[in-house]
Amino acid sequence: MAGPPRRARRRLALPLLCLLLQAATAVLFAVFVRYDREADAALWPRGNHSSAHNEFYFRYPSFQDVHTMVFLGFGFLMAFLQRYGFSSVGFTFLLAAFALQWSTLTQGFLHAFHGGHIHVGVESMINADFCAGAVLISFGAVLGKTGPAQLLLMALLEVALFGINEFVLLSLLGVKDAGGSMTIHTFGAYFGLVLSRVLYRPELEKRKHLQGSIYHSDLFAMIGTIFLWIFWPSFNSAPTPLGDGQHRTVLNTYYSLTASTLSTFALSALIGRDGRLDMVHVQNAALAGGVVVGTASEMMLTPFGALAAGFLAGTVSTLGYKFFTPILESKFKVQDTCGVHNLHGMPGVLGALVGVLVAGLATHEAYGDGLPSVFPLMAAGPRTATSQAMYQLLGLLVTLTLASVGGAVGGCMLKLPFLDAPPDSQCYEDRVYWEVPGEHEDEAQGPLKEEELDTQA
Amino acid sequence: MAGPPRRARRRLALPLLCLLLQAATAVLFAVFVRYDREADAALWPRGNHSSAHNEFYFRYPSFQDVHTMVFLGFGFLMAFLQRYGFSSVGFTFLLAAFALQWSTLTQGFLHAFHGGHIHVGVESMINADFCAGAVLISFGAVLGKTGPAQLLLMALLEVALFGINEFVLLSLLGVKDAGGSMTIHTFGAYFGLVLSRVLYRPELEKRKHLQGSIYHSDLFAMIGTIFLWIFWPSFNSAPTPLGDGQHRTVLNTYYSLTASTLSTFALSALIGRDGRLDMVHVQNAALAGGVVVGTASEMMLTPFGALAAGFLAGTVSTLGYKFFTPILESKFKVQDTCGVHNLHGMPGVLGALVGVLVAGLATHEAYGDGLPSVFPLMAAGPRTATSQAMYQLLGLLVTLTLASVGGAVGGCMLKLPFLDAPPDSQCYEDRVYWEVPGEHEDEAQGPLKEEELDTQA
Amino acid sequence: MAGPPRRARRRLALPLLCLLLQAATAVLFAVFVRYDREADAALWPRGNHSSAHNEFYFRYPSFQDVHTMVFLGFGFLMAFLQRYGFSSVGFTFLLAAFALQWSTLTQGFLHAFHGGHIHVGVESMINADFCAGAVLISFGAVLGKTGPAQLLLMALLEVALFGINEFVLLSLLGVKDAGGSMTIHTFGAYFGLVLSRVLYRPELEKRKHLQGSIYHSDLFAMIGTIFLWIFWPSFNSAPTPLGDGQHRTVLNTYYSLTASTLSTFALSALIGRDGRLDMVHVQNAALAGGVVVGTASEMMLTPFGALAAGFLAGTVSTLGYKFFTPILESKFKVQDTCGVHNLHGMPGVLGALVGVLVAGLATHEAYGDGLPSVFPLMAAGPRTATSQAMYQLLGLLVTLTLASVGGAVGGCMLKLPFLDAPPDSQCYEDRVYWEVPGEHEDEAQGPLKEEELDTQA
Repeated sequence: MAGPPRRARRRLALPLLCLLLQAATAVLFAVFVRYDREADAALWPRGNHSSAHNEFYFRYPSFQDVHTMVFLGFGFLMAFLQRYGFSSVGFTFLLAAFALQWSTLTQGFLHAFHGGHIHVGVESMINADFCAGAVLISFGAVLGKTGPAQLLLMALLEVALFGINEFVLLSLLGVKDAGGSMTIHTFGAYFGLVLSRVLYRPELEKRKHLQGSIYHSDLFAMIGTIFLWIFWPSFNSAPTPLGDGQHRTVLNTYYSLTASTLSTFALSALIGRDGRLDMVHVQNAALAGGVVVGTASEMMLTPFGALAAGFLAGTVSTLGYKFFTPILESKFKVQDTCGVHNLHGMPGVLGALVGVLVAGLATHEAYGDGLPSVFPLMAAGPRTATSQAMYQLLGLLVTLTLASVGGAVGGCMLKLPFLDAPPDSQCYEDRVYWEVPGEHEDEAQGPLKEEELDTQA
Repeated sequence: MAGPPRRARRRLALPLLCLLLQAATAVLFAVFVRYDREADAALWPRGNHSSAHNEFYFRYPSFQDVHTMVFLGFGFLMAFLQRYGFSSVGFTFLLAAFALQWSTLTQGFLHAFHGGHIHVGVESMINADFCAGAVLISFGAVLGKTGPAQLLLMALLEVALFGINEFVLLSLLGVKDAGGSMTIHTFGAYFGLVLSRVLYRPELEKRKHLQGSIYHSDLFAMIGTIFLWIFWPSFNSAPTPLGDGQHRTVLNTYYSLTASTLSTFALSALIGRDGRLDMVHVQNAALAGGVVVGTASEMMLTPFGALAAGFLAGTVSTLGYKFFTPILESKFKVQDTCGVHNLHGMPGVLGALVGVLVAGLATHEAYGDGLPSVFPLMAAGPRTATSQAMYQLLGLLVTLTLASVGGAVGGCMLKLPFLDAPPDSQCYEDRVYWEVPGEHEDEAQGPLKEEELDTQA
Repeated sequence: MAGPPRRARRRLALPLLCLLLQAATAVLFAVFVRYDREADAALWPRGNHSSAHNEFYFRYPSFQDVHTMVFLGFGFLMAFLQRYGFSSVGFTFLLAAFALQWSTLTQGFLHAFHGGHIHVGVESMINADFCAGAVLISFGAVLGKTGPAQLLLMALLEVALFGINEFVLLSLLGVKDAGGSMTIHTFGAYFGLVLSRVLYRPELEKRKHLQGSIYHSDLFAMIGTIFLWIFWPSFNSAPTPLGDGQHRTVLNTYYSLTASTLSTFALSALIGRDGRLDMVHVQNAALAGGVVVGTASEMMLTPFGALAAGFLAGTVSTLGYKFFTPILESKFKVQDTCGVHNLHGMPGVLGALVGVLVAGLATHEAYGDGLPSVFPLMAAGPRTATSQAMYQLLGLLVTLTLASVGGAVGGCMLKLPFLDAPPDSQCYEDRVYWEVPGEHEDEAQGPLKEEELDTQA
């Protein structure tokens, strides 16, 4: 009674992987995960504190903004593809949900393991959402060319490597990277790009018409863009120390984004056909101002510095879409569906370098009593501004290395046959994985034909 | 000069009801409603407190999330119907706006009436929004089959009964139900389902084609889903005690939702045609994890417990859409447009039972000094864990009873002839109540024909 | 090798203006803008304060709501036009980003200039967003009839005048207007309307069919409406004093909006063809309750007063769309694309008058110890309630005068030939400024023909 091979595989690959992963994380949660001191009824120190002093209250609003960016922002930003909206939004949901559980464990073992347990609270939630963000950046590079089972496996690997990279940078090297120019954007982008290189499909050229948007799918994507834009100040500031640090991070990110928006419009019109603007630039490059201050926004970047960084990022990103993405595909055989190299890759590297620069220029005078909170190793003595800058640079190199190696390994894993990759002829199409109604009431997209289902079996 | 009967009724039913209800609540507001101590310029105790200690600041961000869920989340979740988007979003707006005013009064008389006045502040706003949520759940059951005047009358009754049920559970029985598994989800779902049963329309079978979505209406619905998903931790924690209680509730809800998402994808693919996913499941069942911890998320459920509960809820909900909804209609004659039985009904009852279990397992050791805040009657002496569990169970039975009786009464009320119910031939169509432009510029949907307007007069 | 004149101008007008404005603000930022005391690492007073006392934490959640309203709310509210969604959302983005930078400077010089520097922090961010809101209101009046270079120039002028008007009202006249009934809504609306009058295009009548919505563009617009509606309490309360003031403002705005929603539905059905509702009313008039309490919501308006004001505003606004907008165009030659006169103009003036009334009724008894925070000049002695009311009225007159003069000057500026205004035949069309894909995959809207591009050269 078994169906043809490909259909049987389809029916089982995703469910089995979901159930297996969920069972595994549930067991690990049962053994290791506990509420932290501020969330546990028995441990919360009553009497000494008023409820108001629970750090939860100072971090939760930022967390909710980050959560919105991860699920809604990334999901809808990727919904620009005309026939891949269900997958963009749906797989974002699936991947992020899994990444939150799994990164609670991986980050917990590396950062918050004491007394035999991982302790969770608002800070671990923020970190888990950050890790999910990196996974979704990688998803953007392979969008339309991978199935959900493949993506879950990608997330399994990437979350683990993300945790290791973050641990090396923040804990071993003493690198500052609150908003994740390196740990999130650079890592997520190059992991995804190398992975996409390994999965290169020469035949996709023929499906170019499906890699574009239609009018209203661009408006859906703008919903994603706007939520990313407005909440990016919360993203960069979510994990920084309370007080002036978060306040400064918010200001720097806010101004950087305004500048990347202006440079994006300027450049887009300048290079556009007949001077016309391109929605792809507005949807993406306008956000580069958030990425580029991911490392330095916590530092004394100054409002002018934020404008300059943002302006540069918007410019580089817009030019990247126009001139570099085609080369990336034709010369380097990297198919980058969402242009994550332009929004996360280059601006991420640029952001790391801005961090190197601003750290190298740090003085005791400029930071005053705030130095221990921003550069603890400089305040405590062992490091000079220059050596901190060198460590920041080293952090970038470590990130690029780990991301590339990880992406290469991941790409090989995703070629495993039982993972139900979509055939070339069905890339960028929802209906290979979803029941899809038509755009009009009378034209529900029929089921795939038997032959289609069984090709590449 | 009077138009034909049905049109005259149409023109007057909704305006008269709106104006009448608004006049009545305004008079009651004038007589009874006052700012509470923290919102009144003369009563706010200056000097002793810094502004920072106004509880408002610790509850307002959660309130805004709840407000977003009620108006945007529920509204757009119901916009999946291809020709009923204006009504889904518009009537949500109308119903919720009325419910906020009316529940300020009903809940105020029951819970916050002292010195001859109802005192309003951020907590009453949260409670009013919760009540509006229950009304919108019921709206989901009758979506497409009721007019706005009927819906306002439904809200009038439901808000009153919601307040009574809540008062019985929370104040008389000492039941814990912060996130409303019982008071909101179970109550709203069964009130709506019984009401839908009373209004059963055997002829609707013929309009099955309009009960589905089209491609972009599913994307609009996903906007609703995602906002519900990301803000559900705020929903469940909004009314819990400040401090560890809110923090723990957020964590439990967060993890429960990740698990219901994974189980929804697993089950949806497993039972789908050719292993394909169904958007209806993702839009709805993935949220069941929020509903199922509505009672227990405040308790020491443990992160593992949250995963287990969420996994179960996603599974039950997905299977419900596939196997139980058709039976509900064919055998029980309950037409449940949005499947609220699967998202709110069964997960709500399940959530109440999880609450029974977790309350029954509560120990003084596990809660420590936090016991008085979670289970005050256990801390004060009169109750054991087992008796608290029994009261929780009793709360569920009271809720089911009141919801069913209320829904039956409501259904009879909504059959009153002057309420302008849509004829069978115009169910699931916006244009019976709205001026509707076409989907393309040249095809504005014409006005209904005279005959259509006057049928069923 | 130069293209035909109009195309060359197109290619250069927007980029040059963007780059010029960005360069100018960047220089001014470098010279004048510094972090304020709560955002600067060296100035933040450690030791005395816990981080929790940084005012940032009490204002940031409201700020984020305001930010969401400005970028998402206004942007999508204007996306109702069937072929102008890219421009509505995209130019909102561009204009608001520029306005944030520029108003940081103008408001900074007027309000926060000391020690030779402008100090920025969360309060200056809120003020900048408010100013951007006024610019977007004016944008609504000229939507579809102006190009991006024109709009940037409009913003340049309007931001400066906004700052001056606000300074005159708040600092010189001691007028209260926290939520900006006068400074934001009245100013933005009449500036835009007078500007639209100067730019009157008699030929636009022929393009009426493009000034309407299509089915799904109305749903996009509803996303904007709902975010404006749910976050309006944060908008009005964002700049009020911490404590009871913000709490009361939130409550008043919340109730006012519920009442304007009910009156909008009542009136819309009453005056609609066959008693049917009009989406334009719901999208706009339902929000008038937020505008009308912009001045008075901080005062002891009482919950009943909020309901009454909201009800009145919804009524006036709905009737305005039906009866006054056509006259405005035919008699006064003011083409008001979004009906900002109905949503911001009349409700703004009404809101100012409500403020006059409530200020005139203020007593020491009603405000108690809170009087200095709401009416400092009454508490300190020099003013009576009646004189405060007179100053409030004077504030309205100043606002109307400055807005009208400014709009007239702005209109003349926008007629400068190098600003690339759209020809009549291309108003309300994205494709004059954007690369536009089709609504279906096979019908990408072709480039404009040579003749079209060069007309009106």
